[in-house]
Amino acid sequence: MSQPNEFERLRVVLVNTRNPLNIGAAARAMSNFGFAYLRVVNPFELAFREARSAVGAAPLLAGAEEFKSVAEAVADCSLVVGTTALSRRDPQHPVRDLQQGARLIRKRLSAGRAALLFGSEKRGLSNEDLSHCDWLVRIPTREAHRSMNLGQAVAVCLYELARGPKSEAQPEKSVPATAADLERLTSQLLDALHASGYLKTRASSKSKPRSAAPSDEKIRRLVHRLNLSAKDAELFLGILRQILWKLRS
Amino acid sequence: MSQPNEFERLRVVLVNTRNPLNIGAAARAMSNFGFAYLRVVNPFELAFREARSAVGAAPLLAGAEEFKSVAEAVADCSLVVGTTALSRRDPQHPVRDLQQGARLIRKRLSAGRAALLFGSEKRGLSNEDLSHCDWLVRIPTREAHRSMNLGQAVAVCLYELARGPKSEAQPEKSVPATAADLERLTSQLLDALHASGYLKTRASSKSKPRSAAPSDEKIRRLVHRLNLSAKDAELFLGILRQILWKLRS
Repeated sequence: MSQPNEFERLRVVLVNTRNPLNIGAAARAMSNFGFAYLRVVNPFELAFREARSAVGAAPLLAGAEEFKSVAEAVADCSLVVGTTALSRRDPQHPVRDLQQGARLIRKRLSAGRAALLFGSEKRGLSNEDLSHCDWLVRIPTREAHRSMNLGQAVAVCLYELARGPKSEAQPEKSVPATAADLERLTSQLLDALHASGYLKTRASSKSKPRSAAPSDEKIRRLVHRLNLSAKDAELFLGILRQILWKLRS
Repeated sequence: MSQPNEFERLRVVLVNTRNPLNIGAAARAMSNFGFAYLRVVNPFELAFREARSAVGAAPLLAGAEEFKSVAEAVADCSLVVGTTALSRRDPQHPVRDLQQGARLIRKRLSAGRAALLFGSEKRGLSNEDLSHCDWLVRIPTREAHRSMNLGQAVAVCLYELARGPKSEAQPEKSVPATAADLERLTSQLLDALHASGYLKTRASSKSKPRSAAPSDEKIRRLVHRLNLSAKDAELFLGILRQILWKLRS
């Protein structure tokens, strides 16, 4: 995955984070999905120091900027989006689902900086924090268990942001077997079925072309249903050849 | 978000997990997104006990089932999907991006059980683990930093699974074979390959458990790639039984 320039315009802002593991986890997810700029607002001092000095802490974490207030942390951003686990009954802000919200954030990032805010583990974003937000995104968690782990919430949001509209990657396609391959396979399998006694060899089998038997069609359909690649068809042909040789010897 | 019945057919399988926090985090994400059935394979004993007894551990975690092998943990599933951070250069399996993979998993869940496997924090899934998988999903992380935190990877995968439009899932046409069916088929096919001389029977074959051989993994993968229905798996079992009987008589 390439890192579009736009991703450099996102600021992930952790507000009042308590657990150093969560700061580290947020940084890791940022690095996984191609976002580089972390800001922290009033972290528990010790938590922040611990997270920063952790073995293998990403340069990203070492370069995180610290702020005393949300206002300062988002000052240079032209879009400020808060994250929430709750379905607020009387929202002061529009609440968008993550997928739609991510689309709008990406759009904005093409023109300017955007901040994505995550609140503390216990309380989420306060009303004061929320007042700095243009709108909110909500991750579609279950009503019975809305509240996500902070590091996981960051990962899911950044995944959705990075996923973008373009991720229609093609599955790895292998070269499919040709009908001729399958016909050879069908024929060998039929031979093995007769040789093993699975199919009764008809008395007239020598005079009658085999394709007339209903079992042949059944076996051919079976072989076609396997949806084999050319390589696997070859593998099966080799297997059957050996089995046949043994059955006949 | 409602919990469609299909979600009850998913088994999240953690293989060789070391850190109790990660087991807890996986359980939390499952609860957030509406999945209830956790299975663990060979967790570090202490880690599993700690995670289970953690304050507030979800009933989900208390009800997690423990298995000694991947084969047992996925035996009742008709689709087994591994997760990987790597872009394997020479994939033995189709690797699908998460979005497409989630679509296929949802589709399968309309008909039967599916397992989603996550490997250990350090090494991911082993080649032996992977040989039980039908295909793999990859979360689209940056090339420079592929490897995700385990709890975050679980959250992102389940988010994507839960996100999807439910209406898109077309019911499967036929009942797919379970992993246990495929394991029996693999075992019989291996017997036939040895009996026919296609595979050299090792001198130590009686003392050594067969699962150690690399050819076994190769054959298991081959069988999984066939994407068999339960009915076709049964048909093949019958065929192989007869061939084996003949080869040995």
